[in-house]
Amino acid sequence: MSSYSVAILGATGAVGTQMLECLDERDFPVGELRLLASARSAGRKIDYRGEDIVIREATPEAFEGIDIVLGAAGDATAKALLPEAVKRGATVVDNSHAFRLDPDVPLVIPEINGGDVARHHGLIANPNCATIIGLMPVWPLHEIAGLTRLIVSTYQAASGAGAPGLDELMRQSAIVAAGDTVDDPQVFQHQLAMNLIPQIGGFGENGYTSEEMKMQNEGRKIMHLPELRVNCTCVRVPVMRSHSESITCEFERPISPDEARAALAGASGVKVEDDPANSRYPMPLETSDQDLVFVGRIRQDISAPDPSRALALWSCGDQIRKGAATNAVQIAELLVK
Amino acid sequence: MSSYSVAILGATGAVGTQMLECLDERDFPVGELRLLASARSAGRKIDYRGEDIVIREATPEAFEGIDIVLGAAGDATAKALLPEAVKRGATVVDNSHAFRLDPDVPLVIPEINGGDVARHHGLIANPNCATIIGLMPVWPLHEIAGLTRLIVSTYQAASGAGAPGLDELMRQSAIVAAGDTVDDPQVFQHQLAMNLIPQIGGFGENGYTSEEMKMQNEGRKIMHLPELRVNCTCVRVPVMRSHSESITCEFERPISPDEARAALAGASGVKVEDDPANSRYPMPLETSDQDLVFVGRIRQDISAPDPSRALALWSCGDQIRKGAATNAVQIAELLVK
Repeated sequence: MSSYSVAILGATGAVGTQMLECLDERDFPVGELRLLASARSAGRKIDYRGEDIVIREATPEAFEGIDIVLGAAGDATAKALLPEAVKRGATVVDNSHAFRLDPDVPLVIPEINGGDVARHHGLIANPNCATIIGLMPVWPLHEIAGLTRLIVSTYQAASGAGAPGLDELMRQSAIVAAGDTVDDPQVFQHQLAMNLIPQIGGFGENGYTSEEMKMQNEGRKIMHLPELRVNCTCVRVPVMRSHSESITCEFERPISPDEARAALAGASGVKVEDDPANSRYPMPLETSDQDLVFVGRIRQDISAPDPSRALALWSCGDQIRKGAATNAVQIAELLVK
Repeated sequence: MSSYSVAILGATGAVGTQMLECLDERDFPVGELRLLASARSAGRKIDYRGEDIVIREATPEAFEGIDIVLGAAGDATAKALLPEAVKRGATVVDNSHAFRLDPDVPLVIPEINGGDVARHHGLIANPNCATIIGLMPVWPLHEIAGLTRLIVSTYQAASGAGAPGLDELMRQSAIVAAGDTVDDPQVFQHQLAMNLIPQIGGFGENGYTSEEMKMQNEGRKIMHLPELRVNCTCVRVPVMRSHSESITCEFERPISPDEARAALAGASGVKVEDDPANSRYPMPLETSDQDLVFVGRIRQDISAPDPSRALALWSCGDQIRKGAATNAVQIAELLVK
């Protein structure tokens, strides 16, 4: 079996670290492994399968000879460096927002539109975490009944802001538990411990945040539904790493909760956890550090004009894994298949 | 000015304690004050305006000579004792679920249907906390545009389970902050610290919880909208005492976000906090221990078939105050006016 030279851009962050773990767990055919980060981290060593890999500064030249780049850096770094990687012959799977809506760049959730990978010109984008965790359970229902409208309220974990977000929530929680007053937040706009922040990203003119509009814009592109209408409210909650979403879906054709459960039980990457009588439903604590997206609380939307064509459900998934790193490595797997 | 003999049933709980504080703050014309609780608490003393009030065991006879009872006990105690209070001539404002849907019992949010108080036969019911915090900002919009459908996802605080719920969240938070493992939960079905629990109350046959159905059943009764359709998802979040709600409303007639903000700015009991450019929106930490229900994130529902007749918004309010105690004392004020 052939192996591939792989680079991770942003290898020291929460998503980059998880990408490395996923390459190992999934036994990706890694030949040379290059870990790239800012100059600040260069020289540090990270272990991969018993070997110390020295972190290199991310420069255009650092991509020479690389087959596959996994991008886990922010938008600005991604824009500056990833086209340089493509220029040098690499194929890039990027987790930033920078290229997601570019018509020349496939935006891929392998279980939904893996075939789109073939249309790439060097760059493939990994969707937003909340989009992935929302669409994974919605897609199998769309295949049966034809999705027309989504209304989503998210409950998003601190990990969405990376390792600094996780640190800030843990630090604030300890302060609150000690009965002290939390100092000024550095990562989030406001205190997150014992609080909720109904803002993720900046606000647009229509009153929606950038994060909220991703669910519609990315959802349309991934599912090939250019007319899909999505109303999303994104809220940061004091939870570590699984995002949760309360989702109402309207369809063209009837679909019952039982049909939905059957379809989801057979869907790849999704696990149905829907046993209300025993208080079993997806929860962030139980779904963290796993690659599956969990779905439960499946029921008719009793508010719909025609409840037989509308469902409500609740999904939970690890934001760093399937919401970011795992999905990117899955795309890389499609590339080498 | 005349004064009234007042009893609080369940005086030692989170809501009962807050009722006592509200009577004081709002300068309710209290003559005799009788604090009633279980036999276990009888004999304890609670201070009211500098006077020690000895807690009495709640028995039918304990209501003799009382004008107004504020009920802060659970459904079973309410059912057993409050009809006895009515029999003895008292007028009862009850916060339990026991009588809310009884056609002979007005269910009242003073800012919405205060006039319904006049139709009472001794018992008036205080609505569910999530219902109050959801309907307060929706009602002024209904008056303009005619509400037809609500889709609500709640973010409900630990205080909804009373003082034991608050204690459990604080205790678990300290354990998590210390890096230890949380022991078995006593109050909630699962660990709440760093977690979300998408279950409040028991499940019905349609897959909705009792708490979720309250939003529709109580909403219809309070707003006199027997055909109102509501899809609600209730989720417990690791927050102390303000409930938050992500609400999508559909209307018969057009209503713009600006019209909505203007109507809400003039509405009693509601405060508009909607300045996204400065990251100002309602949050549980900032809205706790206040009587107002805060509303923000007001925008068109861009997923609606006709977005000019649909809005999305975010409300936050103290569950123990306006969600329970304050609303009950406001009803009592209507009674003595």
